[in-house]
Amino acid sequence: MDLARIGATPKGGVCRLTLTDVDRKGRDQFAGWAKEAGLEVRHDAIGNIFARRAGSDAKAAPVVMGSHLDSQPTGGKFDGAYGVMAGLEVVRTLNDLGVRTRAPVEVASWTNEEGSRFVPTLMGSGVFAGVLSLEKILKEKDVDGITVSEALAGIGYAGKETSHPVGAYFEAHIEQGPVLEDTKTTIGVVQGALGQRWFDVVFTGQDSHAGPTPMELRKDALIAASRLVLEVNRIATTYPDYARGTVGHMRVKPNSRNVVPGEVRMTVDLRNAKDATLTRMTQDLEKTARAIAEQGRVGLELKEVVYFPPCEFSAGLVASIRDSAKALGLSHRDIVSGAAHDAVYLARVAPTAMIFVPCEAGISHNEIENARPEDLAAGCDVLLQAVLAAAG
Amino acid sequence: MDLARIGATPKGGVCRLTLTDVDRKGRDQFAGWAKEAGLEVRHDAIGNIFARRAGSDAKAAPVVMGSHLDSQPTGGKFDGAYGVMAGLEVVRTLNDLGVRTRAPVEVASWTNEEGSRFVPTLMGSGVFAGVLSLEKILKEKDVDGITVSEALAGIGYAGKETSHPVGAYFEAHIEQGPVLEDTKTTIGVVQGALGQRWFDVVFTGQDSHAGPTPMELRKDALIAASRLVLEVNRIATTYPDYARGTVGHMRVKPNSRNVVPGEVRMTVDLRNAKDATLTRMTQDLEKTARAIAEQGRVGLELKEVVYFPPCEFSAGLVASIRDSAKALGLSHRDIVSGAAHDAVYLARVAPTAMIFVPCEAGISHNEIENARPEDLAAGCDVLLQAVLAAAG
Repeated sequence: MDLARIGATPKGGVCRLTLTDVDRKGRDQFAGWAKEAGLEVRHDAIGNIFARRAGSDAKAAPVVMGSHLDSQPTGGKFDGAYGVMAGLEVVRTLNDLGVRTRAPVEVASWTNEEGSRFVPTLMGSGVFAGVLSLEKILKEKDVDGITVSEALAGIGYAGKETSHPVGAYFEAHIEQGPVLEDTKTTIGVVQGALGQRWFDVVFTGQDSHAGPTPMELRKDALIAASRLVLEVNRIATTYPDYARGTVGHMRVKPNSRNVVPGEVRMTVDLRNAKDATLTRMTQDLEKTARAIAEQGRVGLELKEVVYFPPCEFSAGLVASIRDSAKALGLSHRDIVSGAAHDAVYLARVAPTAMIFVPCEAGISHNEIENARPEDLAAGCDVLLQAVLAAAG
Repeated sequence: MDLARIGATPKGGVCRLTLTDVDRKGRDQFAGWAKEAGLEVRHDAIGNIFARRAGSDAKAAPVVMGSHLDSQPTGGKFDGAYGVMAGLEVVRTLNDLGVRTRAPVEVASWTNEEGSRFVPTLMGSGVFAGVLSLEKILKEKDVDGITVSEALAGIGYAGKETSHPVGAYFEAHIEQGPVLEDTKTTIGVVQGALGQRWFDVVFTGQDSHAGPTPMELRKDALIAASRLVLEVNRIATTYPDYARGTVGHMRVKPNSRNVVPGEVRMTVDLRNAKDATLTRMTQDLEKTARAIAEQGRVGLELKEVVYFPPCEFSAGLVASIRDSAKALGLSHRDIVSGAAHDAVYLARVAPTAMIFVPCEAGISHNEIENARPEDLAAGCDVLLQAVLAAAG
C-alpha cells in the first residue's frame, strides 16, 4: 500500500509507466527497503534490479523471486508489484527468524513488463534471458522519440551487468483471471503459460441491397464470419490442454442496415498449454475457414500474425509449490497462465514456477483491480516455503 | 440518354437531387417533351408533375404511368427516369399510330422518391395518396435548413392541386436486383412489394481478457450475435413468401484482439410478401434471440424500429402485364419488389402494378448502374399493351 502511493491515480489505481520519474521513485523505494533489510542492491544494463541476500555457499546460483514495478497507464496496485513485494517479505521473514540459506536469495524487479511506453513487453526479462537483443532494445523509442537508453540514463538505472546464473526463479502474481475466485481457491499452482497463435482473417463477398437480393443469390461476408466465430468457440471448447479461442475484433463493411455485407475483417486468438495441440487447433481453424468460405462462396484471407510457444514450468518447482500449499493447509489447484509473464522468459534459462493468488472478479489492467490481504499473505507463505526448499 | 445529360456525373451516372436547380432542368425537359407530344402539363402542391393525353370519355379517371426524375447523390441513369420516359414513349407511340383511348392517359413524375435531400422517401406519391400530410411535409428541412416549401417555390414547382382520381397506375422500373439477369428473363411481372420489419439488437456480456478467462466463465456477446446472424439466415431461408433476412450492421465493443467482447450492437432487417408470414418470422426472431441470450448468459435488448406492411398489386393489372409479355413473345416471370417504390403508395388509392426490366449485375444506387436498350424497349412494349387494355 505504501508502494501504491507512488503514481497513485484518483480511482485507486496506479500509473507508473516504465522508466519515467514515477517509476524511478518506485524503484528507489524498493531499493531503499531492500537495503534496510541488509540486501546488496545492483542493476543491470536494461535496468533490472537485483537485491541479494547472501547464502552460506557463495558459489551457489541464487534463488530468485520477482516480478515488475511498472504498470499500465490506468493499472492496478497489485499487477507486478505484488511479486516484488512478496520477495521482499520473504527476505524480511528470513531475517526475522535468523534463517541462513545455503544458496543466496535474490529479489528481482524486471524492467518494462507491460510494454505500455516501450514495445515489446517483457523487455527486461527478455534481455536477461537472451531472447531479446540488448543493443536493439536500447534503441527502441517511445511516442516522444526518447530511447530506452536515454530513459534508463535519465532515471539513473543504466548499469553494466548483462546476466547472471539463476538457480531457480519464482514469481508470485495475482491471477488476472476469474478461476481462483470462481472456485474459492487461495493458491493457483501454475503449470506454465499458454502458447498463443494470432490470426487476421478477411472474408470478401459482394455488397448487395437487402431488399431486392434473394437469399440464394447473396455472397454475405458476415454469415461466413459468424460461422467462424462459432467454429472458433467449438475448437476452444473441444480441444484439451486448456484450449482457448477468441474473436475479439470484427469490422463489417459497408456496415449499413439494409446492405448485405460485402466484407468482414476479424481476428482470431488461439491459446493452448501444449504446442502440439495448439498446432492441431490451428490446422482445424484453417480447414474450417476454407470450408466456410467455399460453402458461402466468399473469398478468404487468413494470415498468422503472432506465434508465442507454450511454456511449461519446472515439474520439480511446481510440485514444491503444491506441497507447500498443502503443508500450510491452503486450498489450491493446478492452473495455467493465459497471459505471458516475466517467468515465461526466465523459464528459458532457469527452473521456474509461478504462484497465483485470486483477484477480485478477475479484473486486472484496471484501476479497480483488487486482492484480499489474507490471500496475498497466503501467497507469500507458499513462496517462503518453496524458496526455502530450493535454496536449502 | 438526353435526360441523363442533366446532372451527369464523371463516372457515367446522375446527380439530380430533388428540388435542386438540376432537378428543375430535368423537370423542364420532361415537361417540354410532353408539351411537344401534345400533352397538358400541370403540377400539384408537392410538385408532382402530370402530363395528360385526353381520352374519348372526359369523365373517366386517367390511366397513369410514371416514376420519378430525382436521383441519389451518386445515382444511375435509369432508376426512376426509366419509368417516366417509358410513359412518354407510350404516349408518343399512341400519337404516331393515331390511337384514341377511352380513358385519359397520364404520365406522372413523383417528387422526391429517393429521400436523399429531404426525408422521408416516396414523398410526392405519399402526399398524393394521403399517407403523408402535405402541411407537415412542406416544413421538412434539408441539411442547410431549406424547407420543402421554399425549395418547391425556388424551382417554380409549387402548385395548388392536391390529388385526383386514378383509374389505374403502372410503373416500369429497372429491377435493382439480380433475379432477372440471373434467370435470363426480360420482363418481371411484379406481384407486389415486400413488407419490412427492422430491429435494433444489443447483446450485453462481460469484457474479459482472452488469455486468463477460461471458455466456461465467459459472457461473450459476439458469440450470441453470431448465433443470431445465422438464425436470421435460417429464418429467411425456411419461411415461404419471398422471405428475406439481413444483418447489415454490427458494432463490437471493445473490439480489441485479445479481449472477449462485452457488447455487440446489431441490426436485423426482415422482409416478406405476406404480412402474416412476416409476423411469424418476427415471432421466431424474438423467441430465438431470447433463447440465445439465455443460453449465452448475456443480456438482450430487441426493439422494432420500422414496420412497413407488404403491398399486393392488383391481380387484374398483374395478369394484364403477364398476358402482354406473353403476347409479345417476351420471356417473363413473377417477381416481387424487395424495395419500396411510388407504386406502393399509389396501390392504396388505385389498382396498381409494376413492370421490372433487368439491370446489369443487379447494381443500382450507383453511377455504374446500367440496362440494355432492348430490355428497356421490351418494358415499354409491355407497358403500352397493359395501358391500352386498362384505358380502353
